[in-house]
Amino acid sequence: MLIRLGYDIRFEIGQPVPMVTLLSVHPSRRYDLKEPDRVIAEPAVGQVEYTDSFGNICTRILAPSGTLRLTNSTIVEDSGLPDPVNPSAREVPVENLPTETLRFLMASRFCEVDLISPLAVELFGDLPRGWGRVKAICDWVHSKVTFSYPHARPTRTALDVFTERVGVCRDFQHLAITFCRCLNIPARYATGYLGDIGVPLSDSPMDFSAWFEVFLDDRWWTFDARHNAPRIGRVLIATGLDATDVAISTSFGVAKLAHFEVVTNEFG
Amino acid sequence: MLIRLGYDIRFEIGQPVPMVTLLSVHPSRRYDLKEPDRVIAEPAVGQVEYTDSFGNICTRILAPSGTLRLTNSTIVEDSGLPDPVNPSAREVPVENLPTETLRFLMASRFCEVDLISPLAVELFGDLPRGWGRVKAICDWVHSKVTFSYPHARPTRTALDVFTERVGVCRDFQHLAITFCRCLNIPARYATGYLGDIGVPLSDSPMDFSAWFEVFLDDRWWTFDARHNAPRIGRVLIATGLDATDVAISTSFGVAKLAHFEVVTNEFG
Amino acid sequence: MLIRLGYDIRFEIGQPVPMVTLLSVHPSRRYDLKEPDRVIAEPAVGQVEYTDSFGNICTRILAPSGTLRLTNSTIVEDSGLPDPVNPSAREVPVENLPTETLRFLMASRFCEVDLISPLAVELFGDLPRGWGRVKAICDWVHSKVTFSYPHARPTRTALDVFTERVGVCRDFQHLAITFCRCLNIPARYATGYLGDIGVPLSDSPMDFSAWFEVFLDDRWWTFDARHNAPRIGRVLIATGLDATDVAISTSFGVAKLAHFEVVTNEFG
Amino acid sequence: MLIRLGYDIRFEIGQPVPMVTLLSVHPSRRYDLKEPDRVIAEPAVGQVEYTDSFGNICTRILAPSGTLRLTNSTIVEDSGLPDPVNPSAREVPVENLPTETLRFLMASRFCEVDLISPLAVELFGDLPRGWGRVKAICDWVHSKVTFSYPHARPTRTALDVFTERVGVCRDFQHLAITFCRCLNIPARYATGYLGDIGVPLSDSPMDFSAWFEVFLDDRWWTFDARHNAPRIGRVLIATGLDATDVAISTSFGVAKLAHFEVVTNEFG
Repeated sequence: MLIRLGYDIRFEIGQPVPMVTLLSVHPSRRYDLKEPDRVIAEPAVGQVEYTDSFGNICTRILAPSGTLRLTNSTIVEDSGLPDPVNPSAREVPVENLPTETLRFLMASRFCEVDLISPLAVELFGDLPRGWGRVKAICDWVHSKVTFSYPHARPTRTALDVFTERVGVCRDFQHLAITFCRCLNIPARYATGYLGDIGVPLSDSPMDFSAWFEVFLDDRWWTFDARHNAPRIGRVLIATGLDATDVAISTSFGVAKLAHFEVVTNEFG
Repeated sequence: MLIRLGYDIRFEIGQPVPMVTLLSVHPSRRYDLKEPDRVIAEPAVGQVEYTDSFGNICTRILAPSGTLRLTNSTIVEDSGLPDPVNPSAREVPVENLPTETLRFLMASRFCEVDLISPLAVELFGDLPRGWGRVKAICDWVHSKVTFSYPHARPTRTALDVFTERVGVCRDFQHLAITFCRCLNIPARYATGYLGDIGVPLSDSPMDFSAWFEVFLDDRWWTFDARHNAPRIGRVLIATGLDATDVAISTSFGVAKLAHFEVVTNEFG
Repeated sequence: MLIRLGYDIRFEIGQPVPMVTLLSVHPSRRYDLKEPDRVIAEPAVGQVEYTDSFGNICTRILAPSGTLRLTNSTIVEDSGLPDPVNPSAREVPVENLPTETLRFLMASRFCEVDLISPLAVELFGDLPRGWGRVKAICDWVHSKVTFSYPHARPTRTALDVFTERVGVCRDFQHLAITFCRCLNIPARYATGYLGDIGVPLSDSPMDFSAWFEVFLDDRWWTFDARHNAPRIGRVLIATGLDATDVAISTSFGVAKLAHFEVVTNEFG
Repeated sequence: MLIRLGYDIRFEIGQPVPMVTLLSVHPSRRYDLKEPDRVIAEPAVGQVEYTDSFGNICTRILAPSGTLRLTNSTIVEDSGLPDPVNPSAREVPVENLPTETLRFLMASRFCEVDLISPLAVELFGDLPRGWGRVKAICDWVHSKVTFSYPHARPTRTALDVFTERVGVCRDFQHLAITFCRCLNIPARYATGYLGDIGVPLSDSPMDFSAWFEVFLDDRWWTFDARHNAPRIGRVLIATGLDATDVAISTSFGVAKLAHFEVVTNEFG
């Protein structure tokens, strides 16, 4: 399956402002790209690409005054298969975890592992370990939290999600990630494209999506506490500890978002 | 100057528990070591050393049931000079910052950059940029927060420090770090040895110490919002976003701290 | 001046749910009422009126399944004068405060006096005491916080307002009230009608409004950190420690708000 | 049974500071007093007694510079019976609750009813209503929270208790009270004397104690999530929404607590 991806994002900028964007398809998908994947800026600005400590491709720019438009359109080849499901995948004892997974057990800005651990143990501590326990976490979050765009809030932490019971996709994932980490299951935040492929068309405007990945057996698996069902056509952009690490754009100054459009759909 | 370093830490452990310790002198000081620097565990347990994403040396062990004792004693050569002071050091515009410093502008578990930014701008936004502004931050934190061991609390964030105005060394640094990041000055948490060298002997038992580092001009500089004066004989163990990343030991299960002793003093 | 007041509020109710409403004009205005002021419920339900510990008129009902409509329309006579301004009004030393004002110095759900006191002292502690200090608090809150209906959030506390810098009228008042209490100035939350009288018509739908009252000299004075200008035609419904005490309706069970309309304008 | 009560509290005061103390035995016990119950201040200061909105006896003083000593010693007659237990006591539907109990369903500074409601419903919503449900709440809090004097913290809320799982008696009660209110069971904070009568002597210094009261059937009943067993010899001082309302002393300025001693034991 071929998936057409793209975005059209515009900022209104007063004073020149440095920005870091994470808008490139993740290196793990680089061989699936059928067209170049490069941020097109109007006006043209100098771009510096670098790889952060998580392996994501970041682009630094100094956004000039005026309107800055960032667009892209590319095509990615996809298996067309839904997220793999493996109920027999096992949790790995911490002492056997690969070293590079250990950081995904720690607390982070939006995932207060220290505050939520007793709760996580009470809710999920007695469940059989493995895939089913992660699924139980997703089920819990999915059933207890109500999705609501108007209730989006950039400062909402996992504990806030637990008390407020409302949020957008990032909030669902933050709470589920935190529960996993509390149980010593490495979990990382993921952001990328997810179109309405194989599901009824949503009536919301397309947006980037958040999901999360969990380390079981010997690899990372995709989970999504918001949709809570295997989906077709996720195209990963970035992973990190939480939303802090993988914001589509981080502005070190004032940049007003004036237009935001994401495209991702089956192609041809 | 030679500095004798060491520790004697004991845990009481019921069930075997995986641990990660950060007890090795930082690689940046490796050529200053005059004796081996290696965690000695009693009973002997398998140790795996690795370097985390910040460049710190971490040691993984699976602590067995019973008493686990971790000790070390080594000697490090030190300049004997106090922390360098450079009032003419300049802040670097974000667009010119080295890529590897950018992560130290972000929010983390104990440093809520997003929540504290307006406050930081109000307090320090109008000050001349550079060393003096960081010093003003340290002065503010040092004068507004009261040091108190009994008020130590592992969940206290920078915002909590701001409201509660009490804490231990990590709390001072968390608030100062957060203020710096809010102003787009890269700041990272540091932990290591700091003895009473060149200062009156403290009447508290020796402990590991926290300070922080700020990127100005083209390098990292040491600041310490708790002591707020240049000190002699800091020996770095680790740096990270905040205390989460550089805990002396992180236990993935129950490990009761039964004894804790740190030694660091001028030698010979 | 005569002011027409009224509301039309509808709830959709599954299971019968007990409710307390504060929809009656405050007893201090009872002699200004030119028409009866009584909650009309459709369907008719038993109503019990009582006065709470703040002196507000509360109405208890057991809302039946189905649609519950609460309406009213009354006329109140008003001086037509804007909120009184008295720059020479003085703060009263705590030891001289009337006993009944002391409760309005305390922390409450949305006003964390304990957490915000150091900040309040830093911002306003050195200002001359009296009316001007309260005005300075209102100016500060008014200029630092951005009004935004979409950012309404029922759990936002004064500290949240301070960090998030966004909110609706209740949020402005909560932060200002907390600052006042931190400085030992009694301050209480007020809710009532406030139409667009003497000011340009707002393009938002009419709502109940929040303001606050401060005790100076020997009486309570009206302040409003949101509008921050004297207004004509406030008609008080209730006062309390914070929004918790004076919610228009508090449901002890699920009651879905289906329609909400408030009327208040100059009459005849 | 006769119980000897008393206290010896000393403050060091720089500038004269207004204080409100709640140190008088509650009016509900006035006929049990066998000796006068009056705050003795050294030096003698003017005292004004008043009753707050909860019915507690408060004493206002203007503490002068220097050492202020507040002492008292009195004798109260007590039934000698443990807290009554009535497993058949029923919850009262909100619509039937006495009006004066309604305020004890609301959120307050340390009891975030709004934030904890979903959790309370998940934990206790399916239990049979009545005494047993309140007991289940006490059992839960008692078993999940660890008592620790060194972890006392005046800003800890019920939600903090839930996440931190550590605290002193007030913390246990705040969490239990909040759970009750979330379930529409009126609950109020209580403070008073509780000696080691009928129980082994504690090795902690005597202090005032906190417990809470719950409205079932047609009266308030004593519960204590910290001790979680019926006790003999409670002598009530004050009730309120939470610890904010019933602090033994509230100082509107700086008053350093220099000595604190409470006596309560069986007499003769």
